[in-house]
Amino acid sequence: MSEIANTPEPPYYAVIFTSLRSDVDEDYAETAARMVELAARQAGFLGVESVRETLGITISYWSDLESIKNWKRQADHLQAQKMGREKWYSAYTTRIAKVERAYQK
Amino acid sequence: MSEIANTPEPPYYAVIFTSLRSDVDEDYAETAARMVELAARQAGFLGVESVRETLGITISYWSDLESIKNWKRQADHLQAQKMGREKWYSAYTTRIAKVERAYQK
Repeated sequence: MSEIANTPEPPYYAVIFTSLRSDVDEDYAETAARMVELAARQAGFLGVESVRETLGITISYWSDLESIKNWKRQADHLQAQKMGREKWYSAYTTRIAKVERAYQK
Repeated sequence: MSEIANTPEPPYYAVIFTSLRSDVDEDYAETAARMVELAARQAGFLGVESVRETLGITISYWSDLESIKNWKRQADHLQAQKMGREKWYSAYTTRIAKVERAYQK
């Protein structure tokens, strides 16, 4: 992904997912792409930014906490989260944050 | 940078800086590295994560808003921000967010 998310005026929420990959590639790239497409169709989705070198950072933006909870419980996403925990990532941290201010050039 | 920031239990704050570079490289890499070192010495600094492909995402973590304000006003950082606006970035968004929850593997 190579665009800055065009989010509305705060407040809104960010899910910051920072990760290190394992050496297991099985279904990873396809699933990651599919999860971005699926997230974008959920209620409350505002945008996503994703970059990886060794460290990966994916930030999805959401209108409210309820939308984040619904996305976390979405069936295909639950399966992807399980694969993430068990196979694709050696380590990760997920942070749920309320965006209070934003400015841009 | 290739490590996940080892942050304390929430709440704390995140400054999410998402950017696209211009084609001006003058002093960029040195200044970026120096700003990370300098930030790490400020009161309230908790950690930083930074990745760039075409899109760059740098997230610094802070204990409170006052620490973020102080860092924003730090003299060398003010000069770097001016160079960023005028030369290094074609576009960027800075978001200030309060981390409310976090979990990890």
